[in-house]
Amino acid sequence: MPATETLKRFREITRLMKQYEEILGVAYWDMRTGAPRKGIPLRSEAVGALSAESFRLSVSDEMGELLEKLSSPGEALSRIDRRLVEEVKKDYDRNRKLPPELYREYVVLTTQAEAVWEEAKENNDFPAFAPYLEKIIDYNRRFIELWGVKGTPYDTLLDLYEPGMSAAELDRLFGELRSRLVPLAEAIAQSGNKPDTSFLEGTFDKEAQKAFSKFILNEMGYDFEAGRLDESVHPFMTGLNLGDARITTRYLSNDLTFALFGTIHEGGHALYEQNIDPELGGTLLAGGTSMGIHESQSRLWENMIGRRRGFWQRYFPELSKHFPGRLDNITAEDFYRGINVVQPGLIRIEADELTYNLHIMIRYEIEKMLFNEGLTVRELPEVWNAKYKEALGIEPPNDSAGVLQDTHWSGGAFGYFPSYSLGNMYAAQMMDVANRELPKLEEQIGAGQLHPLKDWLKEKVYRHGKLLQPAEIIQSVSGRPLQSSYLCDYLEAKYQDIYRL
Amino acid sequence: MPATETLKRFREITRLMKQYEEILGVAYWDMRTGAPRKGIPLRSEAVGALSAESFRLSVSDEMGELLEKLSSPGEALSRIDRRLVEEVKKDYDRNRKLPPELYREYVVLTTQAEAVWEEAKENNDFPAFAPYLEKIIDYNRRFIELWGVKGTPYDTLLDLYEPGMSAAELDRLFGELRSRLVPLAEAIAQSGNKPDTSFLEGTFDKEAQKAFSKFILNEMGYDFEAGRLDESVHPFMTGLNLGDARITTRYLSNDLTFALFGTIHEGGHALYEQNIDPELGGTLLAGGTSMGIHESQSRLWENMIGRRRGFWQRYFPELSKHFPGRLDNITAEDFYRGINVVQPGLIRIEADELTYNLHIMIRYEIEKMLFNEGLTVRELPEVWNAKYKEALGIEPPNDSAGVLQDTHWSGGAFGYFPSYSLGNMYAAQMMDVANRELPKLEEQIGAGQLHPLKDWLKEKVYRHGKLLQPAEIIQSVSGRPLQSSYLCDYLEAKYQDIYRL
Repeated sequence: MPATETLKRFREITRLMKQYEEILGVAYWDMRTGAPRKGIPLRSEAVGALSAESFRLSVSDEMGELLEKLSSPGEALSRIDRRLVEEVKKDYDRNRKLPPELYREYVVLTTQAEAVWEEAKENNDFPAFAPYLEKIIDYNRRFIELWGVKGTPYDTLLDLYEPGMSAAELDRLFGELRSRLVPLAEAIAQSGNKPDTSFLEGTFDKEAQKAFSKFILNEMGYDFEAGRLDESVHPFMTGLNLGDARITTRYLSNDLTFALFGTIHEGGHALYEQNIDPELGGTLLAGGTSMGIHESQSRLWENMIGRRRGFWQRYFPELSKHFPGRLDNITAEDFYRGINVVQPGLIRIEADELTYNLHIMIRYEIEKMLFNEGLTVRELPEVWNAKYKEALGIEPPNDSAGVLQDTHWSGGAFGYFPSYSLGNMYAAQMMDVANRELPKLEEQIGAGQLHPLKDWLKEKVYRHGKLLQPAEIIQSVSGRPLQSSYLCDYLEAKYQDIYRL
Repeated sequence: MPATETLKRFREITRLMKQYEEILGVAYWDMRTGAPRKGIPLRSEAVGALSAESFRLSVSDEMGELLEKLSSPGEALSRIDRRLVEEVKKDYDRNRKLPPELYREYVVLTTQAEAVWEEAKENNDFPAFAPYLEKIIDYNRRFIELWGVKGTPYDTLLDLYEPGMSAAELDRLFGELRSRLVPLAEAIAQSGNKPDTSFLEGTFDKEAQKAFSKFILNEMGYDFEAGRLDESVHPFMTGLNLGDARITTRYLSNDLTFALFGTIHEGGHALYEQNIDPELGGTLLAGGTSMGIHESQSRLWENMIGRRRGFWQRYFPELSKHFPGRLDNITAEDFYRGINVVQPGLIRIEADELTYNLHIMIRYEIEKMLFNEGLTVRELPEVWNAKYKEALGIEPPNDSAGVLQDTHWSGGAFGYFPSYSLGNMYAAQMMDVANRELPKLEEQIGAGQLHPLKDWLKEKVYRHGKLLQPAEIIQSVSGRPLQSSYLCDYLEAKYQDIYRL
């Protein structure tokens, strides 16, 4: 096959893989936003069957031959084609190393384990879940061996979600986080200046919440002609193609902030997907470059913009108008303080902006112990509880509120948790640059002009899609590798002010 | 390959084809119910690419070998497998006979032609559309040659939509229709007892229309756990799987009947799909057996139930309650007469239950002339206008309201139109039997008990899916082949009463 034919065929197959991803994404979105209950069993089978077709393309002998030819040093490829080859080759190498039978067993195991976990959590019965968790960890250990250890065994798992990340790097990042945020949280706990949050109690009309969510998305520059907002039990964003990045949220009548910050969070993810360079459209590079970078955009918008003083100076009057009589005696400053209350708790998904990172740090340390240091599943609850006591000063009364709280491990997603805090660190480091490169940023946000920041992020992050690796993104934005000091600086300054420390 | 292996592989591939159909159906539904505009170009490409993958399965050499083995007289197949082989073989034979290049040209041509038709209709410019229509007809003539002429050339096209149907049969059916319905329409036109329709003018709250649509679907036995009701510009039903048959409708604030009867119509289609035998689930036999039989169910529910006197004796008070103050001085009888007004018009999709059949008859006669009798495209407008004058007593003032009104021909769908009237004929013949086998039917409908009829239709029609051919269905329900006399009897009785002829 001549070189141009090889490239043509490679582009054709990878485009088809992306097209499977897109159409399956529509089915996935549909199942979570209102597909009728009785259609789900056959729908799930159909989704599984078509996923298998796409997987088959990605690990075929033909793909192997194409990749070999296109990876040879003599090939003069465009920047896009070269990255595409790299990306696809990485998955190919990984997937070809897993015996299909082993992988099938693992899929069956995790499917069962997810159901077992759900019941165990409900019944506070860790021993019921433990044997499944042990097996899942065993399988992951075998996968690591088959894939090849990079640095430490846990590094191999980290690379699945944050390409290039290592335990050594995370030790450095979480080390500083621990040394600065644990004392900060303690100082806050002892502060006498607690924000008032009583005005957030009671009910808030759901239709008004919906209207305000749409309003804020518009303000952020979310393009409703390239997306839509729906409701689902667990909010998510799905980037189906560059012209279709959908958001879901959930309106709770007794909680104003859940939908509000959930919407801004998913809106941040969507801004990323909507602003990828059209040149990448339809290729496998048309997506966020890593879990961590994606999470940096949702968290930047949710916390650093959405929970910012200046933002509410501009938008609190609008918010108040949406809920007549509900927030009349509250000032923008009251609201800002109320939504930034810090309260060490046991549950990660209910955590505030600051202590959230400590929840993640604990999970990171435990995962590393499991894969690098021989921690056993039996020892997990005890280690979990001790770490909560040490970092947050509180101890779970039972495993449901402790080691059983998250679904991730039941699905085998080890190495995923760090992405959440990496997102916060990337975001803080980016905002540090943005504050210097956009000298009027504070003023603009206070005036409801969010587009200069959005345009800046588009230029620096969004447009690149997967063309740049996470480490390349943060290096090119800030001129240095990822540091946790920016996040610590940001959190210290913000919360020292709020709590008058 | 041993026989059991052959069968296993055949079932596997055809199940996968069905799964493609289902997932692509979700994407199709999504595009018509709110997918964002900017995502459509890439989405359409993705749908096209996956459709091509499924098509490839259906015409592969492997499929050819499987079909040959499974069609051999020695094979002992179950009833389901045998029908599945027949169905798949029919498509295989048809598709293998078309040179792929020829078919690709045709797809491009019809895609262009649809856009040209839309503009020509807007500008009343038949000459602009004529060359495209000529080419489309030429392609269809070549397809007929390649597929093989059955009886007459037009029969080959009819078989695409109504397996086993022929021009000879339609001549017989439409012949009687013409001889009885044209005089009936004339008598109605001269009647002095015209129903009052003035109360249908003005506005009707859309939310109330939506609520009443849902109420009526529930009454019909539509299962909302196996479907959903949404809005789209052109209402449709899509049977994604046996647990997911979705309906769309369109609410017009100045037209109460559009959404009302549209919903009942699509609801009839959906009842068919929701009640197919679960044994057929996931196979290519899980669907309506033909366009005509499908249309019989939508029209039976829309017209023979939804426009029935007894139905509104039960439901008019409910309807009136949904629109406070709007229908206060109207009786159920007024409403029944008002929604059954007969008014010869030029536009098929606006036609009443009776004259609708004359619109179809005209299209049937013209299509037959085009493919069997050498009518040229140039002569079309003149023939069209003459036929309207003759059958309906009115003549289009221009081609936009005449020969250019329907989209079907621009997409190459010749042979499709007859299905609409076949649906009416099947429905009337079935209802004739239902009236005898369910002696309390009238009473039940008057009491809002629609489930005995639904259950009867499930037993006679729905559950069979594609296991029975259309001719087998009508034969097994009524003990004889399709006749148009039942439809004529029904329409005469109904409208002689309403118009006191």
